Amino acid sequence: MRLREGMLFASDTRTNAGIDHISIFSKMHRFARPGERQIVLLNSGNLATTQQVVNRLRQDVVQNREPHLYSVTSLFEAAELVGDTLRSVIEKAQQGSPSTDFAGNFLIGGQIKGEEPRLFMIYPEGNFIEATKETPFFQIGESKYGKPIFDRVLDFNIPLDEALRCALISFDSTMRSNLSVGLPVDVLKLEAGFGLQEPQIHRVNETDPYWMNLRKQWGEGLRQLFGELPKPTWWKHPSPENE
Amino acid sequence: MRLREGMLFASDTRTNAGIDHISIFSKMHRFARPGERQIVLLNSGNLATTQQVVNRLRQDVVQNREPHLYSVTSLFEAAELVGDTLRSVIEKAQQGSPSTDFAGNFLIGGQIKGEEPRLFMIYPEGNFIEATKETPFFQIGESKYGKPIFDRVLDFNIPLDEALRCALISFDSTMRSNLSVGLPVDVLKLEAGFGLQEPQIHRVNETDPYWMNLRKQWGEGLRQLFGELPKPTWWKHPSPENE
Repeated sequence: MRLREGMLFASDTRTNAGIDHISIFSKMHRFARPGERQIVLLNSGNLATTQQVVNRLRQDVVQNREPHLYSVTSLFEAAELVGDTLRSVIEKAQQGSPSTDFAGNFLIGGQIKGEEPRLFMIYPEGNFIEATKETPFFQIGESKYGKPIFDRVLDFNIPLDEALRCALISFDSTMRSNLSVGLPVDVLKLEAGFGLQEPQIHRVNETDPYWMNLRKQWGEGLRQLFGELPKPTWWKHPSPENE
Repeated sequence: MRLREGMLFASDTRTNAGIDHISIFSKMHRFARPGERQIVLLNSGNLATTQQVVNRLRQDVVQNREPHLYSVTSLFEAAELVGDTLRSVIEKAQQGSPSTDFAGNFLIGGQIKGEEPRLFMIYPEGNFIEATKETPFFQIGESKYGKPIFDRVLDFNIPLDEALRCALISFDSTMRSNLSVGLPVDVLKLEAGFGLQEPQIHRVNETDPYWMNLRKQWGEGLRQLFGELPKPTWWKHPSPENE
């Protein structure tokens, strides 16, 4: 999310190749130089593809093969770099096995000195779109279950800590309905106007007291709210239990 | 949904072939003989496929080609009949154009005298599964956006009118997040223990006062509940706006 107060990133850690091959891998990657640049990547899709992309991006930095994520001077260039790398990794894998799905997606966000915070969603084809005030968030991966809460609550002007709650509830809804998303969840808060200093990062696991409290309050509040809704007015005769 | 109090069916009416070819078609079909059988079909997927299936099922009744939906003596047989018809319609279309997606899904539910109410979900391959007390609802079509509210609230024992609110909120969430689902929404309530008399039916359109009131109360209540959630406890320093 790219909001007035800054940026918030959240990613789960579950990967699966079939239901009997489930592992924990972080899907959040940082390229940072405090005071100068804070770049965050999130990935979804084929793990071999996305790991190879991140490794290649890191390798380019280590071997100083420009352009790399510490040499680019705008987040737009960073998105181009990630998009080109993603496309070439997928193309190469696809040549060897045309019928396998090697697709992956990336979100790239953050700030490079001289620019405002920016956020991009990168497609497997290597092209990308940028978040705006009207559309201040992107999701990748198993995104449908958790989208309604964003559509109801999220706004460019809400505080970052509210955005965090929104993200956690979105993940909670998704994890209740779908086994391919699971804890722990990594969250990263990059506040605007803090001079590109290190972001705040937290890993939410099952026993996190705040997480447990939040989902309990949300679940109970939701059921209470639900119970208070008006009864339908259309029926010719009400159900016997509701008279 | 198949619940203790009876059954509830809900379907939207939007079909689209590309975003510039959007139409209203009911996806709810009834085969009923009061006091003897109440069968409801809901469909999703390729409209040509599902219309052909329903037409063939009706044609079999008109021409008294048994087994048909007024001759079968159990809902299991009714599901077999719909499944076989669905598979044969898809297979025939697929032969002419192997790369086009002709798939469709059906829900079939209701009651035939001598049986309890039953609910089945039928796959394009013609096979099907039956709802149980532990899994009292099925969804077909664009189902992910609206599933979390069912997973949080729905239970075999909740009253039918609560189940109706749940269904309407699920549709509201889906319609806010996805253009392929749209009003009007048809709802049908078939109460258990009413001797298989005619169900109650209602079409919800945009100006329906109950619908407008329900979604307003839900949206406002949700945002209020959201605003009351606790602030995260992890951060080293809170956002300046939250101090």
